[in-house]
Formats: sequence, C-alpha cells, structure tokens
Amino acid sequence: MSEAFCAAIDWGSSGFRLWLLTGDGTVLDERRSAEGMLALAREDFPAVMERHLAELDARPDLPAVICGMAGARQGWHEAHYLDAPAILAGVAAGAVRVPHDARDVRILPGIAQRDKERPDVMRGEETQLLGAFGAHPADALACMPGTHSKWVRLEGGRVQAFATFMTGELYAAISRHTILAHALEEGGDIRGRAAFGNAVHRALSADAALLNRLFAIRSGQLLGYADAADGAAELSGLLIGSEIAGARRLLRAADKVTLIAAGPLAAAYRTALEFAGIAVEAVDAEAAVRHGLLLAARRLWAQDEKAAGAR
Amino acid sequence: MSEAFCAAIDWGSSGFRLWLLTGDGTVLDERRSAEGMLALAREDFPAVMERHLAELDARPDLPAVICGMAGARQGWHEAHYLDAPAILAGVAAGAVRVPHDARDVRILPGIAQRDKERPDVMRGEETQLLGAFGAHPADALACMPGTHSKWVRLEGGRVQAFATFMTGELYAAISRHTILAHALEEGGDIRGRAAFGNAVHRALSADAALLNRLFAIRSGQLLGYADAADGAAELSGLLIGSEIAGARRLLRAADKVTLIAAGPLAAAYRTALEFAGIAVEAVDAEAAVRHGLLLAARRLWAQDEKAAGAR
Repeated sequence: MSEAFCAAIDWGSSGFRLWLLTGDGTVLDERRSAEGMLALAREDFPAVMERHLAELDARPDLPAVICGMAGARQGWHEAHYLDAPAILAGVAAGAVRVPHDARDVRILPGIAQRDKERPDVMRGEETQLLGAFGAHPADALACMPGTHSKWVRLEGGRVQAFATFMTGELYAAISRHTILAHALEEGGDIRGRAAFGNAVHRALSADAALLNRLFAIRSGQLLGYADAADGAAELSGLLIGSEIAGARRLLRAADKVTLIAAGPLAAAYRTALEFAGIAVEAVDAEAAVRHGLLLAARRLWAQDEKAAGAR
Repeated sequence: MSEAFCAAIDWGSSGFRLWLLTGDGTVLDERRSAEGMLALAREDFPAVMERHLAELDARPDLPAVICGMAGARQGWHEAHYLDAPAILAGVAAGAVRVPHDARDVRILPGIAQRDKERPDVMRGEETQLLGAFGAHPADALACMPGTHSKWVRLEGGRVQAFATFMTGELYAAISRHTILAHALEEGGDIRGRAAFGNAVHRALSADAALLNRLFAIRSGQLLGYADAADGAAELSGLLIGSEIAGARRLLRAADKVTLIAAGPLAAAYRTALEFAGIAVEAVDAEAAVRHGLLLAARRLWAQDEKAAGAR
C-alpha cells in the first residue's frame, strides 16, 4: 500500500472533511464530521484535527493542508485573502503556516474582491476552482451552488470577478420563518415538477419582482391555482432563477457554465440552468476540492518529498 | 356626550384595535391588544370582542363592524373575497353577518385577484382604501407598507389590480435567521443614513441582483467598506427599493403614490419613494381604516339609524 503524502482537509462553517492522499491523489482513507468552524472555539481546532488523524493512524509528522473557514478571522488561524483578480495557481503560495508541535500545517487563503461597489469574499471555493481548473487555466464561468452560492468568472487561470448569492440561506430562512412555512409540503424531488420550471422561468423574466412572486406562492394556493405539494419546488425555482438572472447581469451572459456541485443541488441547478438556455459542464464538488488541496500540497511539499526520496 | 353609533374593529393577524364611533366618526373610546387571529382559536373571537366592549361600557346591542383576518377561513367567520376589479363602495354590501346573541356583527370581505399568473389577496387593506378614497373615487396608485406590503392601482373607485410584497416579513426573517444577523447593529433612525439611500438606489437599478446585494452587506463590512451600524439601513433600503422597482414593473410607472402608512415605516417609505422620484401623498393608516369602517357601518346601518331616530 502506498504511503500517505498529505492530509487534505476541507474545513467549512458547518463541516469537517479529511482525506489521506497519496502523491497521485489516491484516497487512502477519510473522515467526516459536523465539527465546522461555527461549532468550535479557536483552541479546539488542533485537537479536533489530531483526533481524526489518530483515528486513521496517520503518522505524527504527516503534513496537512486545509482550506475553508478554518482560515477566517474567527477560525483557527487567519489566512489573509488573496485579492481578485487572483491567479488560482497562487493559492498554495498564499498559504499560512499554523504553529504546531509536530506537523507542517498550512491553511490556504480565500479570495477577496476589494471593490466598494461589489465587495465579495470566498473561502474554500478557490480550492474547488483550483481543483476544477488548475491544470487547464481556461476561460470559464463557474457556478458553485450552496448556502452562499458563488459565481466566478475565470480568465486565463485567474479569478477575474465573482458574486455571491444568499440563495440557500434565504431558502432556509423563508421556508422556516415566514408565512410560506405553511405553503411548503415535503415535496421530494423538485426537478420533475412543472412548478419548478415555471418558477425558474418567472424569475428569469425581465419584469420579475421577487418579493411579490414569493407572496404569490401563498396566494396561488389560497385561490386554488397551486398545491402545497408544489410549494417547495416553486420557492426553490424562484430563488435559483433569480440567482441565475442576477449572475448573468453581474458577470456577463454565458452560454456555458461549469457547475461545481453535488447531490440534489447539482441536479436542481442543472435543470434550472438548462431551462435558462445555458449548457452545463458538471464537476463533482467534493472531487474538485480534494484535487485542489492535492495540487496545493504538491506545490508546498513536492520538493521536500523529492529530497526525502533521494536521501 | 354623543352616543356611539357603532364599534369599529380592525382585527388582523397579530393585533386587535377597536374604536367606539359616533355617526360622524368621532372616537368616543378605544381599545388595543395583541389578540390577533394567530393568537386565537375560532371560538375565542366573540369573548375577546365582548370583553373589550364591556371594558368600554358599550351597550349590549351596539352593532360592530370588523375588517381584517377575522374574516379569513382560519379566523372567526369567513367573509368571502370580492373579486378584483372590485368597487370599493361594494365592500359594505359584501359583509357577512356573524351569528351572535345580542349584537349585529358584520365582517367585511377582503379582495382577491383571481389571475393564475398573478394571484393575490388582501384583507383589511380594502377597508383602508375605502377610508382613504371612498368619498372621492379618483384614479390612484396606493402603497400600504407592512409585513406584506400592498400596492394597489385604483381606477374610478375600483381596485383594478394589486400586488403584495413580502418586504416586512423578509426583513424580519433575514435579520434574525441568516448570517446578516451579525451584520446589523441597532441603528436608530435609518432615514438620515446615506446607506439607506444608496441601498434604495442600488435596488432600483436595472441590473440589481437582490440575492447578491444582500450578501454584499456582509462582505462590505468584512472588507472594511461599511459599518455594522449601517447594516439595518442597508437591508431596509435594499428590500424597500426592490419592492418599489417591482411595483413599478407590475402596476405601471407612476409619478405620484398615495402612501397609507404610519410611524417609522411611513417615514422610511416616503424617503425611499422620493429617492425614486415618486411624489408622495401621505394618509395615516389608522385614520384610513377607521374611516373605512365608519363608511361601511353607515352603509350597513344608517337606514336603521334613521328609522330608529324616527321612532
């Protein structure tokens, strides 16, 4: 069995994922937990990491590369943002070394768009982008759906501009904490529902008024035009459609999008994007972040590795 | 002291307001409480009303006219919607009589817009409109801000078309249940703040992307362009600006709006509307609903009153 080259860790607001990787990216073992930044005090981070590494019998001096909110000011150790436009290949060089007794632990930086009119930040998505595009610095428009969806314009291997949309978080807040809570029945797969497509279409239209369309979910049911079983699909379609319309305006129209996503969200966004006439190239979000962490780790330690091999 | 002509009751989702009125609309006494529809079971309604009337020593056979959610399916007694286009003067004729031992109790109907593409409903606002326009059936565009803001196009005394916006409810859900909870400091009066005007301006622009602008409240603070003291003004400005932009698209542009509102909300909407280049004619919301209830009561009982007077 090959030896581990590094521990690769995606440490977000609400989750922790760790992979033991060989130098060619083979996954030797992995751990997942809900110990995200929001659940941890600063001093908890090293112990959480060590416990998971011990469970996998990782050697005490195996280096670890980390991306995500662990590098935020409220995280383990702040890794200052790179400024957009930012070369993806520069993510590794921007890593900050975390004081640690035994291992070489590095946290990758996020990217900031320091534009007073369109301020924006990302942490973790830059590593997904590195994994998805790092080896082939093409021009592309990437969509990374989630709690805070990111749309990113890449030009020649650079993050040129990006925009975050509060889509997932608004879905949660609206569906739990407004009158629409009574208008959403557990709906299963939203893609098959005409209500989803109709809502995407409405949100894409030039005279869409989102705050009105949201209330119409309720009015439509009260007046018998719609069913609570379609409520979730309609809310999801309106918000995703509104996100796509906004991203088009902010980041230029595109006829192709690289969709970096996983699971039901990937399916919903693919449906909505195709409905909007945008072709989709799908990339698995987890594979992307893992590959991005590997590329960064190679930059950081491949020299040492070669040196060690030559000894 | 003149004798009471009727009890006028505005009974909404979250509040109860009762006035004892003379035939010319003078307020003899009043009661207010938080006993709105959401806090009551169907069988509670008559007892709540009688308790408040007893506190005011109202005579046992004083008639009562009620508007608002008390007439909803989940309220005291359903008063079926009038269908738009609906003549405001017809609100009284659509009243439903509630079975009651002693008094003549009537609940006024709401108005429904039975349009599959733009379904909408109101309950209570029709009575405000009757109070504001009933005597002078002019053409107008009315804005009634609140949890669910209503914009109404009136033509010749008819409610021709209307649109509800979830502005107030979204403000509450976003400010309490998303990451923006950390970006809003108690901010006092938002009108004086440049952040409010800037946010209205941004939301009115043709390429506004609301879900992105919401996240930018947070990013702007993280990157040092904005202050948490301005967060509430910015959120409020974005949502109100988005409502105004949507209402313009849905109900035709207007250079004048009748703003039926009260308190800080009236001031914020006036500022935002004037910022959007729309002249404001202000009507106090409470005076409007009280006057609307009085006009309806006169239609319902003025004949009896005259008859009684002649006896």
